[in-house]
Amino acid sequence: MPKTLADRVRLDPGKPADLRDRDPADKLGLDEPTAAKRLQQCLARLDDLQYRLYAENTRSLLVVLQGMDTSGKDGTVRHVMSGLDPTGCRVTCFKAPSAEELDHDFLWRIHKAAPARGEIGVFNRSHYEDVLIARVRGLVPEKIWRARYEQINAFEKLLSDNGTVILKCFLHISRREQKERLLERLHDPRKAWKFSPQDIEERTRWPLYMDAYEDALAKCSSEHAPWHIIPADRKWVRNAVIAELLVGTLESMKLSLPKASFDVDAVKIPD
Amino acid sequence: MPKTLADRVRLDPGKPADLRDRDPADKLGLDEPTAAKRLQQCLARLDDLQYRLYAENTRSLLVVLQGMDTSGKDGTVRHVMSGLDPTGCRVTCFKAPSAEELDHDFLWRIHKAAPARGEIGVFNRSHYEDVLIARVRGLVPEKIWRARYEQINAFEKLLSDNGTVILKCFLHISRREQKERLLERLHDPRKAWKFSPQDIEERTRWPLYMDAYEDALAKCSSEHAPWHIIPADRKWVRNAVIAELLVGTLESMKLSLPKASFDVDAVKIPD
Repeated sequence: MPKTLADRVRLDPGKPADLRDRDPADKLGLDEPTAAKRLQQCLARLDDLQYRLYAENTRSLLVVLQGMDTSGKDGTVRHVMSGLDPTGCRVTCFKAPSAEELDHDFLWRIHKAAPARGEIGVFNRSHYEDVLIARVRGLVPEKIWRARYEQINAFEKLLSDNGTVILKCFLHISRREQKERLLERLHDPRKAWKFSPQDIEERTRWPLYMDAYEDALAKCSSEHAPWHIIPADRKWVRNAVIAELLVGTLESMKLSLPKASFDVDAVKIPD
Repeated sequence: MPKTLADRVRLDPGKPADLRDRDPADKLGLDEPTAAKRLQQCLARLDDLQYRLYAENTRSLLVVLQGMDTSGKDGTVRHVMSGLDPTGCRVTCFKAPSAEELDHDFLWRIHKAAPARGEIGVFNRSHYEDVLIARVRGLVPEKIWRARYEQINAFEKLLSDNGTVILKCFLHISRREQKERLLERLHDPRKAWKFSPQDIEERTRWPLYMDAYEDALAKCSSEHAPWHIIPADRKWVRNAVIAELLVGTLESMKLSLPKASFDVDAVKIPD
């Protein structure tokens, strides 16, 4: 059987991430018109799947998006999730933790934002920052961040055991593509507000981030919450692959509409 | 100057709501193809307006949807707001308050759900339930709910003074149309899960609810947070009018993209 797109981008548990051997510009055998068509088909399909998830009101879906600055986390939400009914979709952007959040363990604010039954939750950045920026910038001692991989796996197992299906996507862009995108941000008046001089500082730590990502991906790709490494230099590949992953994940949940718990024919509606 | 749709549905401060004199099946001079076209134009326009609101990150928009069961609150979100970028749109459905919520004043849970700067917040039901169901069902003494109109006005003034623009829509359906929709819910397998026998109980209190709505609308339609009475027996009228209200409200905010706070040409992106 030919490998599906999902198979090709999934990082099997126990395997190394080998980011340097994966081409961020990989087209995965797609061309742009085909990808656009598949994206549209997926978006149409998502409408029904989300409706069923919401109506069933038993399980939830958590989509985790990680990637370097400009890797397309915001764009993925905008282009793949804008068709969703916002009643059942909640996006949380995790920024630097607040003083109150820092007064708790690192998963406290994450747990609060977990999707409710029936919901699709999207994390734009996530608890993985606590083994990425926290490690690269030395925000906590090594002993602390080293212990977090296991804590994350246990936390994700808890969610999974309680009905939350987890889909994790790492948007893999090349250092060269990031430069192009930062330049575009700087010089496009519609995007200039997104540029932050801190982006450049982070960029200079690129190899350290790749090391941190390789560990996070390899240590936390589990059967119940596998990582997917999305070639993201081409936005049309990224969008099509993530849309297919979303549809495939929701379809695998075999969502069904609840039946009425009472005798429908016995109900009378008074005038 | 001809009245806009917004003018026609706005309840001017100090005026009575007179719900019995307003036709829920009013087409407001629209026909279905024109309304569908205007809806599409509005949705396209919303994309840019939401982007600016989010980029500006200074003000927010709060949309309050109220109406009897089946009046189309969920459908409005689904059909008018599904094109929004979910990153900047947060829908809160207010159900019966939890034990913790009941241990606070009635606006506590509402305030927590207020939209952040840059966001569009949508309340599907709201603090108005505390002068509607609370009054009709006698959940609190009259003295308590009577005091709430003023408390609501002060609360909405606070939000408004702090950058939240408030758009309140009452979805006005007829008692006859509700019966049709309840029957449809019962007998359409895709909708049966939404039916609750409690809907029938509430229906029998229709006149009491109309009285409570007339008071809520008249007492709480203010310059900073006017009510709009949307003829909602025809879904295509409802969707077109609310989409135009959304666009008109966002346009009146004169949203502009922030300029870079640094010298763009002086920034160098290292390889």
